[in-house]
Amino acid sequence: MSIIKNDLLLRTLRGEETERTPVWMMRQAGRYLPEYLVLRKQYDFFTRCQTPELAAAITLQPVDIVGVDAAILFSDILVVPQAMGLEVQLIESKGPILPDPIKTIKDLIRVRVPNVDDTLGYVFDAIKLIKQELNGRVPLIGFAGAPWTILCYMVQGKGSKTFDEAKAFCYMQPELAHQLLQMITDTTIAYLKGQVAAGADTVQIFDSWGGLLGPDDFENLSLQYIRQIVTAVKDDAPVIIFAKGAWHSLDAMAATGAAGLGIDWCIKPQIARQLSGNNITLQGNFDPAKLLSPIPVIKKEVKQMLHAFGKGHHIANLGHGILPNVPVDHARAFVDTVKEFKWND
Amino acid sequence: MSIIKNDLLLRTLRGEETERTPVWMMRQAGRYLPEYLVLRKQYDFFTRCQTPELAAAITLQPVDIVGVDAAILFSDILVVPQAMGLEVQLIESKGPILPDPIKTIKDLIRVRVPNVDDTLGYVFDAIKLIKQELNGRVPLIGFAGAPWTILCYMVQGKGSKTFDEAKAFCYMQPELAHQLLQMITDTTIAYLKGQVAAGADTVQIFDSWGGLLGPDDFENLSLQYIRQIVTAVKDDAPVIIFAKGAWHSLDAMAATGAAGLGIDWCIKPQIARQLSGNNITLQGNFDPAKLLSPIPVIKKEVKQMLHAFGKGHHIANLGHGILPNVPVDHARAFVDTVKEFKWND
Repeated sequence: MSIIKNDLLLRTLRGEETERTPVWMMRQAGRYLPEYLVLRKQYDFFTRCQTPELAAAITLQPVDIVGVDAAILFSDILVVPQAMGLEVQLIESKGPILPDPIKTIKDLIRVRVPNVDDTLGYVFDAIKLIKQELNGRVPLIGFAGAPWTILCYMVQGKGSKTFDEAKAFCYMQPELAHQLLQMITDTTIAYLKGQVAAGADTVQIFDSWGGLLGPDDFENLSLQYIRQIVTAVKDDAPVIIFAKGAWHSLDAMAATGAAGLGIDWCIKPQIARQLSGNNITLQGNFDPAKLLSPIPVIKKEVKQMLHAFGKGHHIANLGHGILPNVPVDHARAFVDTVKEFKWND
Repeated sequence: MSIIKNDLLLRTLRGEETERTPVWMMRQAGRYLPEYLVLRKQYDFFTRCQTPELAAAITLQPVDIVGVDAAILFSDILVVPQAMGLEVQLIESKGPILPDPIKTIKDLIRVRVPNVDDTLGYVFDAIKLIKQELNGRVPLIGFAGAPWTILCYMVQGKGSKTFDEAKAFCYMQPELAHQLLQMITDTTIAYLKGQVAAGADTVQIFDSWGGLLGPDDFENLSLQYIRQIVTAVKDDAPVIIFAKGAWHSLDAMAATGAAGLGIDWCIKPQIARQLSGNNITLQGNFDPAKLLSPIPVIKKEVKQMLHAFGKGHHIANLGHGILPNVPVDHARAFVDTVKEFKWND
């Protein structure tokens, strides 16, 4: 095991006090960076994901350019349904399309729990290369989508505001839905364990659409599967759960054994502390659209956020992915303000 | 003033105990009804809104067909930006387009606080006709969008998942944003007072995009303007606020003097009671996608919802608008279950 020089993130996930708050940004390896756009013009999405050299280069860009305290693997949550047998098209600026979504029991024939080394080995190769190139500068975060969010795409076949077809599928055919959720869960466990074995220092589970479910449905369709994943992976590496909008279940998420919980910007840090039991590390929660504010406003509001979370048990981040139209200077102002912050500021 | 035979909704808004819980559905006059689709084929959206006979016929359809305890005016929140001078196109199944959105101070020249009798008189005429045709069967609900939600469309120019351009507008040009929000507020106050004068028995303010704002921004960009509207209108008629997703501000919304608060399905009724101070009437909160479940599941879950809210201070409704693909039988099962419910069920 190599020594990581800047291990602020990992120590914060272990609940240790650190000299300052670590900072990274969801979607930090992406469209707001001119250096990324150069590679995007040359290679299509899956080429970028599946070529370890490209994935590594993109993963390292924000570490070099913006100075974040962690790298996060450049990939997409939809590599999992792809590995499970579904066709996934990622068309830039149009969002994902799965041309043959799952609708009935017959469609399940096309879905398998794959051998992840065979189907997702390119991710593990990318991780090994990234770890080499990082050379211990900062930790590497691996990730996967939560089974509910993956089901949303597998059933709806495309992005949606409400994912009503995915929800209707679960309400009309609950047995089939749970069968599919279990297959995604099994795949995801093997996938995340493979990421850690290849070198990921921590992993994050993204439940982007968890917030579309009421509290009881969230437990039934999402959290019970996330819990299985955390249980299976947490002894390998610390796990962060980010279920956007699912503030109502922060206590239940904290009880899974996760090391950290991501929160969005629509909850005050103090309330999130209370709801999650005042003990677990929280990650967030700057409004991504606020990075479009003038830099002095960004600095002021970042300081307010740091004070609101208080010392320790906090990883500074956005409340959702960085927007493509954020100037790089603004992203850097966000990161630098966290890094330069003093508690008497 | 005519006597309303079924005044369950109005008595519940006054906090009185009633023989049973009243029920209606957001967007109940709409696309899931075959009778509506017939009129939609014949007349475009604004013809339907602006022709009192058509608006009245559509408003009455769910009262006759589904048996709800209240009618809600058939119209759209975007008639307000239209009356204020902006072009609004409503293309079926594509959503609204405002081809010349507000971006800078120069664009404000095109926006006015209009005389509502001149610009929105057709709504008042529709209300008068609806009241005649209802003949006191059930109350009529008027409505308008919250100023923040209207600004979202005025600035973004179309629907959006994040309304990031609208938010950036407010963060980059706060004075301009507040000037526009005040103009929308002034228009909305006159508009809702006009609706009540024409015969609306209660009015609802829809803040569909309030949930995109963090708690502090919600107060600053949305609630302070909603508060002005409630203050100006509440002595004319009871006001219901529905700010989707803004659970964090239920206490502040209850303190405005509103008679009722709408809540979405992502909060447990007991928690919403606590957060709103255990006193105000709550409206909601059945997951609209759940109406796609088999009818026995709908019945079971509606009963669970009624028990969770408890006796009194509750108007049964969905947590957001009814989806277009809901079978009419399922909508009727929702309404009938509320109407036939006994507390020992």
